[in-house]
Amino acid sequence: MKLLFSESIQQLKTLPTREILKLTQGNDIISFAGGLPAEDFFPDKAIQEAFINVFEQGKQSLQYGITEGHTLLREEISKRMLLKGIQANLDQIQITTGSQQAIDLITKVFINRGDTILIENPTYLAALQVFQGYGANVVGVNSDDDGMDLDDLNEKIKHYQPKFIYVTPTFANPTGRVWSSERKQGILQICKQFETILIEDDPYGEIQFDKAADYSSIYSLHSTNDDFNPVLYTSTFSKIVAPALRTGWVIGEQSIIQQITKAKQTADIHSSMIDQQALYFLLKYFDLDQHIITICNEYKKRKDQMTQLLKQYEIPAKWVEPQGGMFLWLTLQDSKINSAELLKKAVQKGVAFVPGTVFYTGEGEKNTIRLNFTYTPLEQMQIGIERLQHVLS
Amino acid sequence: MKLLFSESIQQLKTLPTREILKLTQGNDIISFAGGLPAEDFFPDKAIQEAFINVFEQGKQSLQYGITEGHTLLREEISKRMLLKGIQANLDQIQITTGSQQAIDLITKVFINRGDTILIENPTYLAALQVFQGYGANVVGVNSDDDGMDLDDLNEKIKHYQPKFIYVTPTFANPTGRVWSSERKQGILQICKQFETILIEDDPYGEIQFDKAADYSSIYSLHSTNDDFNPVLYTSTFSKIVAPALRTGWVIGEQSIIQQITKAKQTADIHSSMIDQQALYFLLKYFDLDQHIITICNEYKKRKDQMTQLLKQYEIPAKWVEPQGGMFLWLTLQDSKINSAELLKKAVQKGVAFVPGTVFYTGEGEKNTIRLNFTYTPLEQMQIGIERLQHVLS
Repeated sequence: MKLLFSESIQQLKTLPTREILKLTQGNDIISFAGGLPAEDFFPDKAIQEAFINVFEQGKQSLQYGITEGHTLLREEISKRMLLKGIQANLDQIQITTGSQQAIDLITKVFINRGDTILIENPTYLAALQVFQGYGANVVGVNSDDDGMDLDDLNEKIKHYQPKFIYVTPTFANPTGRVWSSERKQGILQICKQFETILIEDDPYGEIQFDKAADYSSIYSLHSTNDDFNPVLYTSTFSKIVAPALRTGWVIGEQSIIQQITKAKQTADIHSSMIDQQALYFLLKYFDLDQHIITICNEYKKRKDQMTQLLKQYEIPAKWVEPQGGMFLWLTLQDSKINSAELLKKAVQKGVAFVPGTVFYTGEGEKNTIRLNFTYTPLEQMQIGIERLQHVLS
Repeated sequence: MKLLFSESIQQLKTLPTREILKLTQGNDIISFAGGLPAEDFFPDKAIQEAFINVFEQGKQSLQYGITEGHTLLREEISKRMLLKGIQANLDQIQITTGSQQAIDLITKVFINRGDTILIENPTYLAALQVFQGYGANVVGVNSDDDGMDLDDLNEKIKHYQPKFIYVTPTFANPTGRVWSSERKQGILQICKQFETILIEDDPYGEIQFDKAADYSSIYSLHSTNDDFNPVLYTSTFSKIVAPALRTGWVIGEQSIIQQITKAKQTADIHSSMIDQQALYFLLKYFDLDQHIITICNEYKKRKDQMTQLLKQYEIPAKWVEPQGGMFLWLTLQDSKINSAELLKKAVQKGVAFVPGTVFYTGEGEKNTIRLNFTYTPLEQMQIGIERLQHVLS
């Protein structure tokens, strides 16, 4: 039978590296490829208690819920967001199945085939894939260690009239970068001037190693006296609680959230209500902030270990020391190396990473690789970096 | 700020009745409108035990999972499907966030704007909304109490060359209809002949009042000796376990399921892994089949009560007695009544239903209404039908 698939799904390319990375599963391969949090620190007891609290509420907690998401959870999120300077009432919050679904629904709400989206280049791979699937014209804006180049952004907004701009200003995936205050203020003003929506994806914002440092979200820089906040802010519990719960959220002006809710309703009616209720109880009774301090300390230790090992094994690469998040972004000294080719060799030697090119729209820097430092414990990490040394020598 | 939403989201109309039905929430209104299972029969203790089983597995159960869905759950689904004559290996099963997401992902995989989808008319409202959102040309095929008129189907396939046909052959929403064996065999042959995909949506298939009756799925009528099964079968645990878990699945040829998995990955990476693992344990340790017998007996009782009340209060309408599912489809004797207008009056009198027109593509029968009989206990049901009598008199 001849199958006529949609343009959308045909445009959604399976990554060639996906097949290679599949080989890492179940084998004696040390993988720095996944974006996984460390299992050792999942608050499993507290999560279990939270679920028991849900069941103690009675059978009603097992019924259908509302598309917007569990009201009590949205209240708790609203309170937590205040600590980040984000003011949002319940009508401004939509619960999603991880922040991945937030990206998908936002794109559905704004993008017609051929519309332009501006991005940092490189950026989050699975966002690029969503944009591809909706037939968007994805254009990279020049970026450096402080964020997007605002002159280039200005020009590209004028030239392309993008439907929205997608950024990860705090501990970006894959680069680990943090935008400077000036750039954050700058992009907000530009978005207001050109009436352009800004998607601020913030899954890693709370994984910060220096608790005293200020990593204000772009969303929070908007003054509530102003007319309209062009920022849609999205985050998730996957990195600070546990990924299996698949619970994220998106915050924005009510007129936009209403459209996202409409899209959510046809997509899946609502996300798991049991998980949402459990997260409500977790936020209520568990000291999540203390827990975040614990994982941040541990992740910082692992990051330090990894950078030390990279030096110790004289991996011929440079990187910017990340101040949070989950990734180390390496640029290999030999600019002729194609890291996608290198991966094949690496997997044979028993170590895996993600080649940098997959994070770019267009060509990209072929001699870049992304290493995850949160998942692998020290002993394994050492073996992994040693193997990487063999691959590169 | 001027907001430029996508065509998709603009085409997705909010139903005018949605606002009216919102009024029913929290008020002294007896609602036969929702498609809700009865809470009293949710197996809450067994579900709680299943979740405890998940946590006993350790912290790894809280990590990210694979997009296809929890392997052990797919194995259990594969076994359960065998009892329905459906043979599917693990690569042919994709777990979704309720069967609603299955409908959405299938549509994403096949439909370009302007492509035609053939449907029974009336049919499941939220499927119509998905199709609308993807810009499909939705065309109704003439249907009667035995299913689609196969001559009309033949003609419309030739004329429109649809991408797929969407049917709910067992206890349909809203009509409660069951297709005859001849029609089921017929549509399968036609789909093979014209190489057209058939979506068989089966959320209610197990809510059958006569356990001895044969309600074979269309999917199962395909001989495994044949080349290619054009049927995609989707169902859910929402009606037989509990909706809050939001877990459904879709079964089909591997070449199609692979594309659905690709779409699922960008949509939300995967559905709640905690819920999927809990459902695995539930299927393993809980006697779900006995539980289904219990709810079927109860739902049959409620259906009998409702039809008896409709007669007792001399509601001027006719209906076909449903043999399963959750809905009673009434055609009011007075063909001039517009049930959407009637709903406004009804809500004022303290009773709600869904006006039939929302389930049609095109005009539809204005004097039809859908009543849910599973959710409302007897005493309340009597008050509700009495109120309906007042509205109609």
